[in-house]
Amino acid sequence: MSEQARTPGSTDEHPGVTALLAVLAYGELAAFERLAKESEMAPDLRGRIAVGSMAATQMRNFEKLAAQLELRGEDVVEATAPFQPVISRYHARTTPRNWNEALVKAYIGDGLAADFYSEIARALPADASAAVREVLADTSESDFVVDRVRAAITANPALRSPLTLWGRRLLSDAITQAQEVLATRDELSALIFESDADLPGIAQFFESLQTRHAERMTALGLG
Amino acid sequence: MSEQARTPGSTDEHPGVTALLAVLAYGELAAFERLAKESEMAPDLRGRIAVGSMAATQMRNFEKLAAQLELRGEDVVEATAPFQPVISRYHARTTPRNWNEALVKAYIGDGLAADFYSEIARALPADASAAVREVLADTSESDFVVDRVRAAITANPALRSPLTLWGRRLLSDAITQAQEVLATRDELSALIFESDADLPGIAQFFESLQTRHAERMTALGLG
Repeated sequence: MSEQARTPGSTDEHPGVTALLAVLAYGELAAFERLAKESEMAPDLRGRIAVGSMAATQMRNFEKLAAQLELRGEDVVEATAPFQPVISRYHARTTPRNWNEALVKAYIGDGLAADFYSEIARALPADASAAVREVLADTSESDFVVDRVRAAITANPALRSPLTLWGRRLLSDAITQAQEVLATRDELSALIFESDADLPGIAQFFESLQTRHAERMTALGLG
Repeated sequence: MSEQARTPGSTDEHPGVTALLAVLAYGELAAFERLAKESEMAPDLRGRIAVGSMAATQMRNFEKLAAQLELRGEDVVEATAPFQPVISRYHARTTPRNWNEALVKAYIGDGLAADFYSEIARALPADASAAVREVLADTSESDFVVDRVRAAITANPALRSPLTLWGRRLLSDAITQAQEVLATRDELSALIFESDADLPGIAQFFESLQTRHAERMTALGLG
Protein backbone atom coordinates (compact mmCIF):
# COMPACT_ATOMS: atom_id res chain seq x y z
CA MET A 1 0.00 0.00 0.00
CA SER A 2 1.59 3.25 -1.07
CA GLU A 3 0.06 5.81 1.27
CA GLN A 4 1.92 8.74 -0.23
CA ALA A 5 0.17 8.33 -3.56
CA ARG A 6 -3.26 8.85 -1.98
CA THR A 7 -5.01 12.09 -1.26
CA PRO A 8 -7.79 12.35 1.33
CA GLY A 9 -11.10 11.22 -0.08
CA SER A 10 -9.63 10.37 -3.48
CA THR A 11 -11.23 7.44 -5.22
CA ASP A 12 -8.19 5.26 -4.60
CA GLU A 13 -8.47 5.67 -0.82
CA HIS A 14 -9.67 2.51 0.89
CA PRO A 15 -13.41 2.81 1.72
CA GLY A 16 -12.66 1.62 5.24
CA VAL A 17 -10.77 4.83 6.04
CA THR A 18 -13.85 7.02 6.49
CA ALA A 19 -15.62 4.23 8.39
CA LEU A 20 -12.67 3.94 10.74
CA LEU A 21 -12.45 7.70 11.30
CA ALA A 22 -16.20 7.78 11.91
CA VAL A 23 -16.17 5.04 14.54
CA LEU A 24 -13.24 6.69 16.34
CA ALA A 25 -14.99 10.08 16.19
CA TYR A 26 -18.23 8.77 17.64
CA GLY A 27 -16.27 6.90 20.29
CA GLU A 28 -14.69 10.19 21.40
CA LEU A 29 -18.02 12.01 21.43
CA ALA A 30 -19.63 9.26 23.50
CA ALA A 31 -16.63 9.29 25.87
CA PHE A 32 -17.02 13.06 26.27
CA GLU A 33 -20.69 12.74 27.12
CA ARG A 34 -20.11 9.90 29.57
CA LEU A 35 -17.21 11.60 31.36
CA ALA A 36 -19.08 14.90 31.57
CA LYS A 37 -21.95 13.02 33.19
CA GLU A 38 -19.66 11.09 35.51
CA SER A 39 -17.90 14.25 36.68
CA GLU A 40 -21.16 14.94 38.55
CA MET A 41 -20.34 11.91 40.74
CA ALA A 42 -17.13 13.58 41.93
CA PRO A 43 -16.98 13.97 45.71
CA ASP A 44 -15.11 17.29 45.45
CA LEU A 45 -14.15 20.14 43.15
CA ARG A 46 -10.73 18.67 42.34
CA GLY A 47 -12.44 15.55 41.02
CA ARG A 48 -14.93 17.59 38.99
CA ILE A 49 -12.06 19.51 37.42
CA ALA A 50 -9.98 16.41 36.63
CA VAL A 51 -12.81 14.47 35.02
CA GLY A 52 -14.14 17.61 33.32
CA SER A 53 -10.70 18.11 31.75
CA MET A 54 -10.67 14.50 30.57
CA ALA A 55 -14.11 15.02 29.02
CA ALA A 56 -13.01 18.22 27.25
CA THR A 57 -9.98 16.38 25.84
CA GLN A 58 -12.29 13.75 24.32
CA MET A 59 -14.34 16.49 22.69
CA ARG A 60 -11.18 18.06 21.26
CA ASN A 61 -10.26 14.61 19.93
CA PHE A 62 -13.70 14.29 18.37
CA GLU A 63 -13.16 17.63 16.62
CA LYS A 64 -9.81 16.51 15.18
CA LEU A 65 -11.34 13.32 13.80
CA ALA A 66 -14.40 15.17 12.51
CA ALA A 67 -12.03 17.50 10.63
CA GLN A 68 -10.49 14.44 8.94
CA LEU A 69 -13.96 13.29 7.90
CA GLU A 70 -14.83 16.73 6.54
CA LEU A 71 -11.56 16.76 4.59
CA ARG A 72 -12.94 13.67 2.86
CA GLY A 73 -16.25 15.36 2.06
CA GLU A 74 -18.09 13.34 4.70
CA ASP A 75 -20.82 14.75 6.92
CA VAL A 76 -19.81 13.79 10.43
CA VAL A 77 -23.39 13.13 11.57
CA GLU A 78 -24.17 10.86 8.63
CA ALA A 79 -20.81 9.11 8.80
CA THR A 80 -21.04 8.30 12.50
CA ALA A 81 -24.72 7.26 12.56
CA PRO A 82 -24.11 3.55 11.80
CA PHE A 83 -21.78 3.22 14.77
CA GLN A 84 -23.95 4.85 17.40
CA PRO A 85 -25.85 1.72 18.48
CA VAL A 86 -22.77 -0.42 19.15
CA ILE A 87 -20.95 2.31 21.09
CA SER A 88 -24.09 3.14 23.08
CA ARG A 89 -24.41 -0.57 23.94
CA TYR A 90 -20.83 -0.60 25.26
CA HIS A 91 -21.50 2.37 27.54
CA ALA A 92 -24.85 0.97 28.66
CA ARG A 93 -23.10 -2.28 29.65
CA THR A 94 -20.33 -0.43 31.47
CA THR A 95 -22.14 2.39 33.29
CA PRO A 96 -20.21 3.07 36.52
CA ARG A 97 -22.29 2.77 39.68
CA ASN A 98 -20.02 5.04 41.71
CA TRP A 99 -17.12 7.46 41.54
CA ASN A 100 -14.37 4.82 41.90
CA GLU A 101 -15.84 2.76 39.07
CA ALA A 102 -16.01 5.95 36.99
CA LEU A 103 -12.31 6.64 37.65
CA VAL A 104 -11.28 3.08 36.81
CA LYS A 105 -13.34 3.16 33.62
CA ALA A 106 -11.84 6.50 32.58
CA TYR A 107 -8.30 5.19 33.05
CA ILE A 108 -8.74 1.65 31.73
CA GLY A 109 -11.02 2.75 28.89
CA ASP A 110 -8.59 5.47 27.82
CA GLY A 111 -5.72 3.00 27.86
CA LEU A 112 -7.59 0.39 25.84
CA ALA A 113 -8.69 3.03 23.35
CA ALA A 114 -5.06 4.15 23.00
CA ASP A 115 -3.97 0.55 22.34
CA PHE A 116 -6.61 0.12 19.65
CA TYR A 117 -5.78 3.51 18.17
CA SER A 118 -2.08 2.87 17.83
CA GLU A 119 -2.86 -0.45 16.11
CA ILE A 120 -5.46 1.16 13.85
CA ALA A 121 -3.27 4.14 12.93
CA ARG A 122 -1.03 1.76 10.98
CA ALA A 123 -3.90 0.97 8.62
CA LEU A 124 -4.61 4.62 7.79
CA PRO A 125 -3.18 6.96 5.16
CA ALA A 126 -0.55 9.41 6.40
CA ASP A 127 -2.74 12.43 7.24
CA ALA A 128 -5.45 10.42 9.00
CA SER A 129 -2.80 8.40 10.79
CA ALA A 130 -1.16 11.60 12.05
CA ALA A 131 -4.53 12.85 13.37
CA VAL A 132 -5.16 9.54 15.14
CA ARG A 133 -1.68 9.55 16.69
CA GLU A 134 -2.26 13.10 17.89
CA VAL A 135 -5.50 12.01 19.57
CA LEU A 136 -3.62 9.09 21.06
CA ALA A 137 -0.98 11.32 22.62
CA ASP A 138 -3.60 13.44 24.31
CA THR A 139 -4.24 11.52 27.52
CA SER A 140 -4.51 13.87 30.43
CA GLU A 141 -5.12 13.51 34.14
CA SER A 142 -4.09 9.87 34.44
CA ASP A 143 -1.90 10.67 37.48
CA PHE A 144 -4.97 12.06 39.21
CA VAL A 145 -6.93 8.87 38.58
CA VAL A 146 -4.11 6.58 39.71
CA ASP A 147 -3.61 8.58 42.92
CA ARG A 148 -7.32 8.67 43.72
CA VAL A 149 -7.97 4.97 43.08
CA ARG A 150 -4.90 3.87 45.07
CA ALA A 151 -5.89 6.18 47.93
CA ALA A 152 -9.45 4.81 47.92
CA ILE A 153 -8.20 1.21 48.12
CA THR A 154 -5.73 2.05 50.88
CA ALA A 155 -8.51 3.70 52.86
CA ASN A 156 -10.87 0.81 52.25
CA PRO A 157 -9.18 -2.45 51.14
CA ALA A 158 -12.58 -4.07 50.59
CA LEU A 159 -12.83 -2.01 47.40
CA ARG A 160 -10.00 -3.89 45.73
CA SER A 161 -11.92 -7.02 44.79
CA PRO A 162 -15.03 -5.42 43.23
CA LEU A 163 -12.91 -2.85 41.37
CA THR A 164 -10.66 -5.63 40.04
CA LEU A 165 -13.72 -7.46 38.69
CA TRP A 166 -14.91 -4.16 37.20
CA GLY A 167 -11.56 -3.68 35.43
CA ARG A 168 -11.76 -7.19 33.97
CA ARG A 169 -15.29 -6.56 32.72
CA LEU A 170 -14.13 -3.38 31.01
CA LEU A 171 -11.50 -5.35 29.06
CA SER A 172 -13.89 -8.05 27.95
CA ASP A 173 -16.62 -5.52 27.03
CA ALA A 174 -14.10 -3.43 25.08
CA ILE A 175 -13.07 -6.50 23.08
CA THR A 176 -16.73 -7.36 22.46
CA GLN A 177 -17.29 -3.79 21.31
CA ALA A 178 -14.30 -3.93 18.94
CA GLN A 179 -15.64 -7.15 17.42
CA GLU A 180 -19.12 -5.69 17.05
CA VAL A 181 -17.68 -2.59 15.38
CA LEU A 182 -15.75 -4.71 12.89
CA ALA A 183 -18.92 -6.68 12.15
CA THR A 184 -20.85 -3.46 11.46
CA ARG A 185 -19.07 -2.74 8.20
CA ASP A 186 -17.22 -5.14 5.92
CA GLU A 187 -14.86 -2.43 4.70
CA LEU A 188 -13.58 -1.92 8.25
CA SER A 189 -12.34 -5.43 8.75
CA ALA A 190 -11.07 -5.42 5.17
CA LEU A 191 -8.98 -2.32 5.90
CA ILE A 192 -7.55 -3.63 9.14
CA PHE A 193 -6.93 -7.18 8.00
CA GLU A 194 -5.48 -6.11 4.65
CA SER A 195 -2.88 -3.89 6.19
CA ASP A 196 -2.04 -6.13 9.12
CA ALA A 197 -3.14 -9.37 7.65
CA ASP A 198 -1.33 -12.32 9.13
CA LEU A 199 -3.26 -14.14 11.82
CA PRO A 200 -0.32 -14.44 14.22
CA GLY A 201 -0.25 -10.60 14.08
CA ILE A 202 -3.86 -10.35 15.21
CA ALA A 203 -3.35 -12.91 17.95
CA GLN A 204 -0.23 -11.07 19.06
CA PHE A 205 -2.18 -7.81 19.21
CA PHE A 206 -4.82 -9.26 21.54
CA GLU A 207 -2.11 -10.79 23.69
CA SER A 208 -0.23 -7.50 24.03
CA LEU A 209 -3.58 -5.78 24.73
CA GLN A 210 -4.03 -8.07 27.73
CA THR A 211 -0.47 -7.46 28.89
CA ARG A 212 -0.88 -3.70 28.78
CA HIS A 213 -4.27 -3.97 30.46
CA ALA A 214 -2.68 -5.98 33.29
CA GLU A 215 0.01 -3.28 33.64
CA ARG A 216 -2.65 -0.59 33.95
CA MET A 217 -4.55 -2.62 36.53
CA THR A 218 -1.32 -2.96 38.53
CA ALA A 219 -0.75 0.80 38.26
CA LEU A 220 -4.19 1.30 39.86
CA GLY A 221 -3.34 -1.16 42.64
CA LEU A 222 -5.81 -3.71 41.24
CA GLY A 223 -5.59 -7.31 39.99
CA MET B 1 -1.21 51.99 37.20
CA SER B 2 2.01 50.81 35.63
CA GLU B 3 1.23 47.22 34.65
CA GLN B 4 4.64 46.56 33.14
CA ALA B 5 6.39 46.97 36.50
CA ARG B 6 4.40 44.12 38.02
CA THR B 7 5.18 40.43 37.91
CA PRO B 8 2.51 37.78 38.48
CA GLY B 9 1.89 37.19 42.15
CA SER B 10 4.44 39.77 43.24
CA THR B 11 3.54 41.64 46.38
CA ASP B 12 2.80 44.81 44.44
CA GLU B 13 0.09 43.09 42.39
CA HIS B 14 -3.40 44.23 43.36
CA PRO B 15 -5.03 41.59 45.62
CA GLY B 16 -8.14 41.77 43.46
CA VAL B 17 -6.31 40.16 40.54
CA THR B 18 -6.37 36.62 41.90
CA ALA B 19 -9.95 37.08 43.09
CA LEU B 20 -10.97 38.19 39.62
CA LEU B 21 -9.16 35.31 37.91
CA ALA B 22 -10.78 32.93 40.38
CA VAL B 23 -14.33 34.11 39.76
CA LEU B 24 -13.82 33.96 36.00
CA ALA B 25 -12.30 30.47 36.30
CA TYR B 26 -15.18 29.12 38.37
CA GLY B 27 -17.63 30.77 35.99
CA GLU B 28 -16.09 28.85 33.09
CA LEU B 29 -16.11 25.56 34.99
CA ALA B 30 -19.77 26.01 35.93
CA ALA B 31 -20.61 26.92 32.32
CA PHE B 32 -18.86 23.75 31.16
CA GLU B 33 -20.85 21.61 33.56
CA ARG B 34 -24.14 23.27 32.68
CA LEU B 35 -23.61 23.06 28.92
CA ALA B 36 -22.47 19.45 29.13
CA LYS B 37 -25.67 18.66 30.99
CA GLU B 38 -27.81 20.67 28.58
CA SER B 39 -26.32 18.91 25.55
CA GLU B 40 -28.38 15.92 26.73
CA MET B 41 -31.51 17.94 25.87
CA ALA B 42 -30.45 18.13 22.21
CA PRO B 43 -33.02 16.68 19.84
CA ASP B 44 -30.33 15.36 17.48
CA LEU B 45 -26.67 14.51 17.11
CA ARG B 46 -25.80 17.84 15.48
CA GLY B 47 -27.14 19.64 18.54
CA ARG B 48 -25.22 17.34 20.89
CA ILE B 49 -22.03 18.07 18.97
CA ALA B 50 -22.53 21.85 18.87
CA VAL B 51 -23.32 22.21 22.57
CA GLY B 52 -20.68 19.65 23.50
CA SER B 53 -18.11 21.76 21.62
CA MET B 54 -19.26 24.87 23.45
CA ALA B 55 -18.89 23.02 26.75
CA ALA B 56 -15.38 21.84 25.88
CA THR B 57 -14.41 25.42 24.98
CA GLN B 58 -15.49 26.57 28.45
CA MET B 59 -13.34 23.87 30.03
CA ARG B 60 -10.37 24.97 27.94
CA ASN B 61 -11.04 28.53 29.11
CA PHE B 62 -11.14 27.32 32.70
CA GLU B 63 -7.74 25.69 32.19
CA LYS B 64 -6.22 28.92 30.85
CA LEU B 65 -7.50 30.91 33.82
CA ALA B 66 -6.43 28.18 36.27
CA ALA B 67 -2.93 28.41 34.76
CA GLN B 68 -2.91 32.14 35.55
CA LEU B 69 -3.88 31.37 39.14
CA GLU B 70 -1.16 28.73 39.45
CA LEU B 71 1.36 31.21 38.06
CA ARG B 72 0.46 33.32 41.09
CA GLY B 73 1.01 30.44 43.51
CA GLU B 74 -2.74 30.03 44.06
CA ASP B 75 -4.46 26.69 44.42
CA VAL B 76 -7.36 26.81 41.98
CA VAL B 77 -9.73 24.89 44.27
CA GLU B 78 -9.03 27.12 47.27
CA ALA B 79 -9.11 30.31 45.19
CA THR B 80 -12.45 29.56 43.54
CA ALA B 81 -14.25 28.21 46.63
CA PRO B 82 -15.60 31.62 47.81
CA PHE B 83 -17.32 32.20 44.47
CA GLN B 84 -19.05 28.86 44.09
CA PRO B 85 -22.26 29.78 45.96
CA VAL B 86 -23.02 32.93 43.94
CA ILE B 87 -22.34 31.27 40.59
CA SER B 88 -24.36 28.21 41.57
CA ARG B 89 -27.24 30.50 42.53
CA TYR B 90 -27.12 32.15 39.09
CA HIS B 91 -27.35 28.79 37.33
CA ALA B 92 -30.06 27.56 39.68
CA ARG B 93 -32.12 30.67 38.87
CA THR B 94 -31.55 30.25 35.12
CA THR B 95 -31.89 26.52 34.55
CA PRO B 96 -33.32 26.04 31.04
CA ARG B 97 -36.55 24.05 30.92
CA ASN B 98 -36.07 22.97 27.32
CA TRP B 99 -33.64 22.86 24.42
CA ASN B 100 -34.55 26.30 23.02
CA GLU B 101 -34.04 27.95 26.41
CA ALA B 102 -30.71 26.13 26.66
CA LEU B 103 -29.64 27.51 23.25
CA VAL B 104 -30.71 31.05 24.12
CA LYS B 105 -28.91 30.86 27.47
CA ALA B 106 -25.74 29.54 25.82
CA TYR B 107 -25.71 32.40 23.30
CA ILE B 108 -26.88 35.24 25.55
CA GLY B 109 -24.83 34.04 28.50
CA ASP B 110 -21.68 33.72 26.38
CA GLY B 111 -22.22 37.21 25.00
CA LEU B 112 -22.77 38.77 28.42
CA ALA B 113 -19.74 36.98 29.78
CA ALA B 114 -17.68 38.32 26.86
CA ASP B 115 -18.90 41.86 27.60
CA PHE B 116 -17.94 41.56 31.26
CA TYR B 117 -14.62 39.99 30.34
CA SER B 118 -13.57 42.70 27.94
CA GLU B 119 -14.40 45.29 30.61
CA ILE B 120 -12.60 43.35 33.31
CA ALA B 121 -9.50 42.67 31.20
CA ARG B 122 -8.70 46.38 31.37
CA ALA B 123 -8.28 46.13 35.13
CA LEU B 124 -5.78 43.26 34.95
CA PRO B 125 -1.99 43.21 34.61
CA ALA B 126 -0.70 42.44 31.11
CA ASP B 127 -0.28 38.65 31.30
CA ALA B 128 -3.62 38.03 33.02
CA SER B 129 -5.30 40.47 30.66
CA ALA B 130 -3.91 38.58 27.67
CA ALA B 131 -5.26 35.30 29.06
CA VAL B 132 -8.69 36.82 29.63
CA ARG B 133 -8.76 38.29 26.12
CA GLU B 134 -7.82 34.88 24.71
CA VAL B 135 -10.74 33.31 26.57
CA LEU B 136 -12.94 36.07 25.25
CA ALA B 137 -11.99 35.39 21.64
CA ASP B 138 -12.89 31.74 21.98
CA THR B 139 -16.60 31.78 21.25
CA SER B 140 -17.57 28.90 19.05
CA GLU B 141 -20.77 27.60 17.54
CA SER B 142 -22.76 30.83 17.80
CA ASP B 143 -23.89 30.48 14.16
CA PHE B 144 -25.38 27.12 15.04
CA VAL B 145 -27.35 28.61 17.94
CA VAL B 146 -28.63 31.56 15.91
CA ASP B 147 -29.75 29.28 13.06
CA ARG B 148 -31.48 26.84 15.38
CA VAL B 149 -33.32 29.45 17.46
CA ARG B 150 -34.48 31.37 14.37
CA ALA B 151 -35.65 28.13 12.74
CA ALA B 152 -37.55 27.14 15.89
CA ILE B 153 -39.35 30.49 16.01
CA THR B 154 -40.18 30.36 12.30
CA ALA B 155 -41.62 26.87 12.75
CA ASN B 156 -43.55 27.91 15.84
CA PRO B 157 -44.05 31.69 16.26
CA ALA B 158 -45.65 31.14 19.67
CA LEU B 159 -42.12 30.49 20.98
CA ARG B 160 -41.04 34.09 20.40
CA SER B 161 -42.73 35.64 23.40
CA PRO B 162 -41.61 33.17 26.12
CA LEU B 163 -38.07 33.08 24.71
CA THR B 164 -37.94 36.88 24.69
CA LEU B 165 -38.92 36.94 28.36
CA TRP B 166 -36.31 34.28 29.02
CA GLY B 167 -33.63 36.41 27.34
CA ARG B 168 -34.59 39.42 29.47
CA ARG B 169 -34.41 37.35 32.63
CA LEU B 170 -30.93 36.19 31.66
CA LEU B 171 -29.74 39.79 31.43
CA SER B 172 -31.19 40.83 34.77
CA ASP B 173 -29.94 37.67 36.50
CA ALA B 174 -26.47 38.19 35.01
CA ILE B 175 -26.38 41.74 36.38
CA THR B 176 -27.56 40.49 39.78
CA GLN B 177 -24.83 37.88 39.69
CA ALA B 178 -22.18 40.47 38.81
CA GLN B 179 -23.31 42.62 41.74
CA GLU B 180 -23.28 39.65 44.10
CA VAL B 181 -19.80 38.71 42.94
CA LEU B 182 -18.51 42.22 43.58
CA ALA B 183 -20.08 42.12 47.05
CA THR B 184 -18.32 38.83 47.83
CA ARG B 185 -14.89 40.38 48.06
CA ASP B 186 -13.95 43.99 48.74
CA GLU B 187 -10.72 43.72 46.75
CA LEU B 188 -12.72 42.90 43.62
CA SER B 189 -14.73 46.09 43.55
CA ALA B 190 -11.60 47.99 44.62
CA LEU B 191 -9.71 46.62 41.59
CA ILE B 192 -12.47 47.34 39.12
CA PHE B 193 -13.45 50.75 40.45
CA GLU B 194 -9.83 51.85 40.87
CA SER B 195 -8.93 51.16 37.28
CA ASP B 196 -12.15 52.38 35.76
CA ALA B 197 -13.19 54.67 38.50
CA ASP B 198 -15.43 57.43 37.26
CA LEU B 199 -19.10 56.78 37.81
CA PRO B 200 -20.14 57.89 34.33
CA GLY B 201 -17.80 55.09 33.11
CA ILE B 202 -19.68 52.47 35.12
CA ALA B 203 -23.05 53.80 34.01
CA GLN B 204 -21.83 53.81 30.42
CA PHE B 205 -20.73 50.21 30.75
CA PHE B 206 -24.15 49.04 31.92
CA GLU B 207 -25.78 51.02 29.14
CA SER B 208 -23.57 49.51 26.45
CA LEU B 209 -24.18 46.08 28.02
CA GLN B 210 -27.90 46.56 27.42
CA THR B 211 -27.32 47.75 23.86
CA ARG B 212 -25.22 44.73 23.01
CA HIS B 213 -27.72 42.44 24.72
CA ALA B 214 -30.49 43.92 22.56
CA GLU B 215 -28.37 43.31 19.45
CA ARG B 216 -27.91 39.67 20.40
CA MET B 217 -31.63 39.27 21.05
CA THR B 218 -32.32 40.69 17.59
CA ALA B 219 -29.79 38.29 16.08
CA LEU B 220 -31.78 35.44 17.62
CA GLY B 221 -35.03 36.84 16.22
CA LEU B 222 -36.21 37.79 19.71
CA GLY B 223 -37.23 41.02 21.41
